Amino acid sequence: MLQFRVEKTEVASRARLGTLVLPNGTVHTPCFMPVGTQGSVKTLTPAEVVESGAEIIVCNTYHLYLRPGHKRIQAAGGLPKFIGWNRPVLTDSGGFQVYSLAALTRVTDEGAQFQSHVDGSRHLFTPELVVEIQEALGSDIAMCLDECPPYPVSRPVAEAAVARTSLWAERCSRARKPETNLFGIVQGATYADLRESSARSLVALDLPGYAIGGLCLGEASDVTYDMVGRVTPLLPIDRPRYLMGAGYPEDIIAAVKLGVDMFDCVLPTRNGRTGTAFVSSGRVVIRNSRHSDDLGALDPMCDCYTCRSFTRAYLRHLFVVGEALGPKLLTLHNVRFYQRLMQGMRAAIEQGAFENWSGEFLDRYRSSAQPTGEDSDR
Amino acid sequence: MLQFRVEKTEVASRARLGTLVLPNGTVHTPCFMPVGTQGSVKTLTPAEVVESGAEIIVCNTYHLYLRPGHKRIQAAGGLPKFIGWNRPVLTDSGGFQVYSLAALTRVTDEGAQFQSHVDGSRHLFTPELVVEIQEALGSDIAMCLDECPPYPVSRPVAEAAVARTSLWAERCSRARKPETNLFGIVQGATYADLRESSARSLVALDLPGYAIGGLCLGEASDVTYDMVGRVTPLLPIDRPRYLMGAGYPEDIIAAVKLGVDMFDCVLPTRNGRTGTAFVSSGRVVIRNSRHSDDLGALDPMCDCYTCRSFTRAYLRHLFVVGEALGPKLLTLHNVRFYQRLMQGMRAAIEQGAFENWSGEFLDRYRSSAQPTGEDSDR
Repeated sequence: MLQFRVEKTEVASRARLGTLVLPNGTVHTPCFMPVGTQGSVKTLTPAEVVESGAEIIVCNTYHLYLRPGHKRIQAAGGLPKFIGWNRPVLTDSGGFQVYSLAALTRVTDEGAQFQSHVDGSRHLFTPELVVEIQEALGSDIAMCLDECPPYPVSRPVAEAAVARTSLWAERCSRARKPETNLFGIVQGATYADLRESSARSLVALDLPGYAIGGLCLGEASDVTYDMVGRVTPLLPIDRPRYLMGAGYPEDIIAAVKLGVDMFDCVLPTRNGRTGTAFVSSGRVVIRNSRHSDDLGALDPMCDCYTCRSFTRAYLRHLFVVGEALGPKLLTLHNVRFYQRLMQGMRAAIEQGAFENWSGEFLDRYRSSAQPTGEDSDR
Repeated sequence: MLQFRVEKTEVASRARLGTLVLPNGTVHTPCFMPVGTQGSVKTLTPAEVVESGAEIIVCNTYHLYLRPGHKRIQAAGGLPKFIGWNRPVLTDSGGFQVYSLAALTRVTDEGAQFQSHVDGSRHLFTPELVVEIQEALGSDIAMCLDECPPYPVSRPVAEAAVARTSLWAERCSRARKPETNLFGIVQGATYADLRESSARSLVALDLPGYAIGGLCLGEASDVTYDMVGRVTPLLPIDRPRYLMGAGYPEDIIAAVKLGVDMFDCVLPTRNGRTGTAFVSSGRVVIRNSRHSDDLGALDPMCDCYTCRSFTRAYLRHLFVVGEALGPKLLTLHNVRFYQRLMQGMRAAIEQGAFENWSGEFLDRYRSSAQPTGEDSDR
């Protein structure tokens, strides 16, 4: 079982500072969890992820179930050990990937039938199986199987997804071993009353933690914040809250102010691989020819290996000629950028100065923002 | 200028232990130089290359001249600094790449005309320009422009290549600044007398070091060794000797016994990227299903991060699902394997026990060799 202690809650906002003790280690919240879908935070060694300051990563049940298989990982001592990380791992249930990646054949109350995107083989994810897989993986935090509709979605479809998500959460909860840290996932799309009823029905299950799913899928930021702000007051104050798939630094800051504790997103890793860096003054598209002769650091305010060791001119060269080191060095920086963001937030909450800190951060961050058009899908 | 000191020469073989002092650092020979063609040892950070024990790397004049351009690198403080390595770099002249990669339009005594493989632009590499480029790059060791025929090649073509290589070497030597450490390249294909005459004509130029080029191109190992064995006795004993493009551990061992001091090859990096590891007992093709549940280290005798941290089962998983970390971890191991090989050799020469050491190494290495059919091209 997990232990979660809220060390401090800001008076001016709902931002909270917490300590989350998990079987494989302790996590300081608010936290950002780098994504290691298939058991690897893309391009980084576990040692580099540790060095970034990350204390927990997110892996994916759907992918690991297909390859290499949860039984194989169990035989190797569980996921944290198998991947050489040996620290806390949260596994997403795979519901999102079943809907987005697999050829979905049929969803009924029983579960989700799908065909593997790898070899076309047929599978059925039931709430019970998804819990069993995550228990075999030895996840520090397991997620309920949920139904996550795309955005936008009609009210009747959203309603049905909320009902099924609640039904499945109850079955997940019944199936789990007592020591399994199972999180429920609040759905309801962009319908405020559905969000609230989803939250209430999951809270009734008395789960160790709660996630907010089905957001950051393309809706306007104001809508995201509105939905989050309606859900968090309904969640128990002594349980961790996780906003799935967020996102941009400004979104994370806004959600922390609304009382969210945990985040994950592919943005730092995916953008790093494709050549966009998050820096103190905004975003940098490193292939831009303006960097050809720039002998300055990627981010002069950053302490990561990339910023300490290389110029923008060299990083651009690596991307232009297609060297694998380029995507790796930008990923390394971005992952560290997000950890520094969270460290800055935690220090600000500790000092009761979150509003002030976030204003300064965002002023600087927006000073040269270069939107890239990339989305925060997971 | 370089300083080269032969610390010891074996009585039983011609194997020699040396110290090579270069502008950017000291290199212990026999040495293996990882290949960083475009200014990056593929998939590795400079810190990881340092940690492997490598003291010098090889970069490529042709590639860096095209992108990002030698003037740009010069403005950034030279190649060792630009790439964040800050240690000795040898640059190949680019002759080999002009012949193998570019659309070669014409070679005359003046130089090699070619079209860039990147954008089709037209260029002329003269001996003088190639020296000028390498001086701009700030290479610790610069190579003469040479003419390197493919294998097999007729005697008249080989003869002409030897003549032109000598002519160009003389022009390179005249063009260089006094402090430029210029190496001549012995050609002559597989014709013993041509090899000998090529060596004699280059030695007459009194260059700081000598390379043997145009071997390890597909000829039988016996032929390689025969050619090397005919050349090394003709080279001055107080100058470093570099066999270009070798190779497999057994080839390096054989060449060290013939008095060669320096080696480079893409094998450890290329094979690592494509999933073949060099281990104490031979070669391992990591995708092989036999490794699916293997919880042992890649090489139990190795001290690298990969072997200390991960199982063969996890490494196989990374390759099967296409994670970039797989090629990186195998490259890291292979580069360390080659450095451990050279460290073992140097210790053996120091103790006057090279024959004994190499017998033991090769007995173990051949115990489960799995040839992969890959070639040692550069």
